[in-house]
Amino acid sequence: MKLRRSERMVVISNYLINHPYELTSLNTFAEKYESAKSSISEDIVIIKRAFEEMEIGHIETITGAGGGVVFTPSISDEESKEIVEELCQQLSESNRILPGGYIYLSDLLSNPKILNSIGRIIAKAFRNKKIDAVMTVATKGVPLANAVANVLNVPFVIVRRDLKITEGSTVSVNYVSGSSGDRIEKMFLSKRSLKAGSRVLIVDDFLKGGGTINGMVSLLSEFDSELAGVAVFADNASTEREFFEHKSLLRVTNIDVKENKLNVEVGNIFD
Amino acid sequence: MKLRRSERMVVISNYLINHPYELTSLNTFAEKYESAKSSISEDIVIIKRAFEEMEIGHIETITGAGGGVVFTPSISDEESKEIVEELCQQLSESNRILPGGYIYLSDLLSNPKILNSIGRIIAKAFRNKKIDAVMTVATKGVPLANAVANVLNVPFVIVRRDLKITEGSTVSVNYVSGSSGDRIEKMFLSKRSLKAGSRVLIVDDFLKGGGTINGMVSLLSEFDSELAGVAVFADNASTEREFFEHKSLLRVTNIDVKENKLNVEVGNIFD
Repeated sequence: MKLRRSERMVVISNYLINHPYELTSLNTFAEKYESAKSSISEDIVIIKRAFEEMEIGHIETITGAGGGVVFTPSISDEESKEIVEELCQQLSESNRILPGGYIYLSDLLSNPKILNSIGRIIAKAFRNKKIDAVMTVATKGVPLANAVANVLNVPFVIVRRDLKITEGSTVSVNYVSGSSGDRIEKMFLSKRSLKAGSRVLIVDDFLKGGGTINGMVSLLSEFDSELAGVAVFADNASTEREFFEHKSLLRVTNIDVKENKLNVEVGNIFD
Repeated sequence: MKLRRSERMVVISNYLINHPYELTSLNTFAEKYESAKSSISEDIVIIKRAFEEMEIGHIETITGAGGGVVFTPSISDEESKEIVEELCQQLSESNRILPGGYIYLSDLLSNPKILNSIGRIIAKAFRNKKIDAVMTVATKGVPLANAVANVLNVPFVIVRRDLKITEGSTVSVNYVSGSSGDRIEKMFLSKRSLKAGSRVLIVDDFLKGGGTINGMVSLLSEFDSELAGVAVFADNASTEREFFEHKSLLRVTNIDVKENKLNVEVGNIFD
């Protein structure tokens, strides 16, 4: 379809936003929008500048026969910090404290706007790592993993705590369940869900003892895959764990069930 | 930040894509990009035309004091059909058949690109319904509900088959579990996850007997909420169910475990 230059720029930028981390040749755009490659090239320069000025992301131009452009989404530090501060406020609400000292998170982790922002913040924090897949454990981690995978344009894999017949053959490992004292439990991953040699970012909603994440790390070795990093929505500062490094958006420093109060601060994601 | 017109258009269209179904006043853009409201108004006209020509979506202009623009994402029928045909092919692969006649879907429903496309197709099919939330059942429905909610810019709620302490108070209903014969089971929804009076789109991965969806429908009445529609990734043509209308992307007409074959055709979503 033949478009005016201004329209073409709108449409190309939309295409790039919807195809992050993908190489698209200028010829593809030239054919699609019936324009000279040189015009497309000029469009890209303008889009690139606009994206960089507003910190929407970067456009890398790869020259040569197999070349083209690749869009990497980003988010400005200012916007990231605003979002995390706002989440800090929301997580500090006293009515989130549940009996047993658990914190209700489901409303935050089911809001597409929040999830998209978190996805971009976490993806940015791991932008220098090569990531092939995002892993999480069912159920609460799923929207979060989905959001991060979305920005990185890689598949996500869901580890389960129960065996489902619709998953086919699975591999299982034992792990120490932190939330239920020192109980040993099992987690399962469908055999066909992760390719050998993958570099995997583990994502979860709340990090307490770290048993669940350790379980996922041991699953990775069962799949001959490698840990690229660990990111959590919130962690608990009062718990000791020395097994793996992780980045957190939020840190809960104190849960006082009796007084119905909790302290939440910004995690280490910006360190 | 002051931008050139061409850059401003790229940035405004990016903003609209990331804020679907939200009213933004032209003044917001005028202040943000230090431009006259009349220039922004001209930008919007061009973006609107580009979005409509490429069927990226519609921009509605609301005049008056509380006015502004609202972007509604869409997808062309041509692209929708291509995507569904492609999914048809992928679902027909014989190695998806699991013992018991189940079908392995997890790879398709963990691919961000596929999920985004499905989200746009389902959202378009229900574009005339007012939808306040998307509901699904854990775990396999979650990425799908997430994808649809993302396009509609509404929260999604996750019904569970087990009781989790991190959900706080829940409401439960009984339902007839189709996959396990005629067993009666329970499903739970956190009390604070759905506001009374919501209009809800139910989304699930695979529709067989319909017991799970019936369960969710009865949960809706417990929450004084209303069913706005049912959408599934795939349904099974050979199963009788008369309880509710639904739209499906794909229809499995025959699963032959012995011959390791299955037939998949396009569902009724385009009817």
